[in-house]
Amino acid sequence: MANKTVTSPKGFEAGGLACGIKISGKKDMALLLCPDGATAAAMFTTNKIVSAAVTVCKQHIKNETIKAVIANSGNANACTGTKGLADAEKTCVLLARQIGAKADEILIASTGIIGKHLPMPKINAGIKKICKTAKNTASAGADFAKAIMTTDTRPKQAMRTLTISGKKITIAGTSKGAGMIGPNMATTLCFITTDVNIAKPLLNSAFKEAIGGSLNKLTVDGHQSTNDTAIILASAVAANPVIRSRCPRYKKFANSLADLCTDLAKQMALDAEGATRMFTVVVKGAATKADAAKAARAVADYDLVKCAVHGADPNWGRIICAVGSAGVKLNLNKLNCKIGDITVFKNGRPAIFNPAAASKIIAAKEHTITINLDSGKYSDFCYGCDLSRDYIKINADYHT
Amino acid sequence: MANKTVTSPKGFEAGGLACGIKISGKKDMALLLCPDGATAAAMFTTNKIVSAAVTVCKQHIKNETIKAVIANSGNANACTGTKGLADAEKTCVLLARQIGAKADEILIASTGIIGKHLPMPKINAGIKKICKTAKNTASAGADFAKAIMTTDTRPKQAMRTLTISGKKITIAGTSKGAGMIGPNMATTLCFITTDVNIAKPLLNSAFKEAIGGSLNKLTVDGHQSTNDTAIILASAVAANPVIRSRCPRYKKFANSLADLCTDLAKQMALDAEGATRMFTVVVKGAATKADAAKAARAVADYDLVKCAVHGADPNWGRIICAVGSAGVKLNLNKLNCKIGDITVFKNGRPAIFNPAAASKIIAAKEHTITINLDSGKYSDFCYGCDLSRDYIKINADYHT
Repeated sequence: MANKTVTSPKGFEAGGLACGIKISGKKDMALLLCPDGATAAAMFTTNKIVSAAVTVCKQHIKNETIKAVIANSGNANACTGTKGLADAEKTCVLLARQIGAKADEILIASTGIIGKHLPMPKINAGIKKICKTAKNTASAGADFAKAIMTTDTRPKQAMRTLTISGKKITIAGTSKGAGMIGPNMATTLCFITTDVNIAKPLLNSAFKEAIGGSLNKLTVDGHQSTNDTAIILASAVAANPVIRSRCPRYKKFANSLADLCTDLAKQMALDAEGATRMFTVVVKGAATKADAAKAARAVADYDLVKCAVHGADPNWGRIICAVGSAGVKLNLNKLNCKIGDITVFKNGRPAIFNPAAASKIIAAKEHTITINLDSGKYSDFCYGCDLSRDYIKINADYHT
Repeated sequence: MANKTVTSPKGFEAGGLACGIKISGKKDMALLLCPDGATAAAMFTTNKIVSAAVTVCKQHIKNETIKAVIANSGNANACTGTKGLADAEKTCVLLARQIGAKADEILIASTGIIGKHLPMPKINAGIKKICKTAKNTASAGADFAKAIMTTDTRPKQAMRTLTISGKKITIAGTSKGAGMIGPNMATTLCFITTDVNIAKPLLNSAFKEAIGGSLNKLTVDGHQSTNDTAIILASAVAANPVIRSRCPRYKKFANSLADLCTDLAKQMALDAEGATRMFTVVVKGAATKADAAKAARAVADYDLVKCAVHGADPNWGRIICAVGSAGVKLNLNKLNCKIGDITVFKNGRPAIFNPAAASKIIAAKEHTITINLDSGKYSDFCYGCDLSRDYIKINADYHT
């Protein structure tokens, strides 16, 4: 079987193990190595309160060369004050020592419970062990994907290959996140590796576009975490002539990266807390791009729509109500709505349709709700998932 | 027992019956009469898509004198086009004929399913019958309160008395709404009667303030319906010298009205779909009033906070995360949070507290979460309720 993990692109080693942060004994430490150095780009949460890892990572990402990424699950290291910040910095120092790098060549990410200090002796022992076990194998990559999970029921991984200047390029990635997911950014943790040779500003723009059109379009509960971090590392080992401009080779790479990120976003939607299915809301005919995005998100975030999707109920009234409350320009007399390819609302009035056929579309793993505002030429979309009793179970029965 | 219904103030008659809109056979038509005419004020949903009743009511409220309010439940008469609008107007005409009023002296409100036409023959027969049975008794007032209910499990009613210029003034009201409730406005349907003698502009401002500080501070799921309508009728039968300015008598009346509206808002929070308890989020130390309101609503609307309240879990991490994502000015190093009177977060860091004691506070019927942003002198609040499996049950198992 093909290696679809972060070790699939050339130039990377990975590992994942349990160092004792999670009381369950599950894997909680993940390491990604690029021994010869990688060009890197990253995006972070827009929450005003960020974890210590985000603060440190925002500094280190300025470096031209990155040699490793260390991530832990089970502890967010957020709201932990100056000690928390020192712990995140210390983690980078400990890893740097082991691999012969500088501390600011290390990127760091954390996810888990807020307000607890990291168990530094366990982190220290874990780092020593994980550096010895890191490999470039599929199973090591799979261990990495498992070690970043929290309430996820399964790892999310994706891989794409393409050819640039006659060289085979591989892009692979993994992400975690099942709750506390809202756009800008909605990624929780996401790590992408590629062996493409690309200049940092171009890697940055391709990554920004890819995340903007995928993970940042996903809402589970509209929540931003304090720890959201998405990182891409490019090892350049594929040895294509370096991509320095927005040339066709850049476009090819950027498209493939965007496709991979969309794949991960959809895997996250389908494994969202309590979710049984996902849906895409497409808004057309908006007066502005911002209106289109706002209306799409309003529908995807609307609990009553999410409940209707869970019940496979073609309840267009709730969709229209959500659109009306989004505060965007709309022409009610020409407002249209489709569930899949079935028109349920036309020219501001209920359309005659077969409810059983519409229900069948919603009951599938994925469906699309399309709304035309008839107020302009802009469109945008948002990914959402259904809201089930299990979301409540996961988030009410769980105790801090 | 004291009459705490809309017929308690002098000058009003009411009624409620089943005219056949609801297939359950439950009461679905409510009538409020003020035979000698009342001064009226109203507030409506800010959703861009509004029901036919809202469109008609916005016109009729401009009238100096109002003689009746007709409301139906089970059918929202929203997204029903020109026929829907004609039906709402026709309803006013039919009632006007029965009571010897002009059609524009009638206010109208609807609530229920979106996108279905009103069964006009049933409405016609219902109006004839309800006009004959309307009375100024407590049981007639109670019938009114029952006839506006949809998914409500119990009627919401409140009554206050006060003395103005030596005259006894009574204010009474009822409201309905259990889901699709978000601020601006969050009232679904609300009807208040009073026998005070007050000029229309003053009634309007007192009502705006009262709703602004009560029903508009309530969020169940952050949703605005297409039909939200709050109406107050003042019969002037108490015969106090008319209130024409913001004098101490005005203040007294306005305070009592605000208190009654808060009572109704809390009754709604406690009967919200699936809710088992409510909470008040108070935000202090905000840079602006808007920031305070935004942060308070962000916390009250945050599904993960609502789930934690359901589980009686003092999960301050979710509260702080919601505050951070509200996009308001805050000073993390001085950020404080209390659950009841227990400080759970102090100066940007977790406080040491007794989790069992905090859990006990949350498990009560009502509690307060207080957040200090340390960024200014403004404060505001929002009412919220917990999110339970029953919200999903009510909204996913229900089919259009």
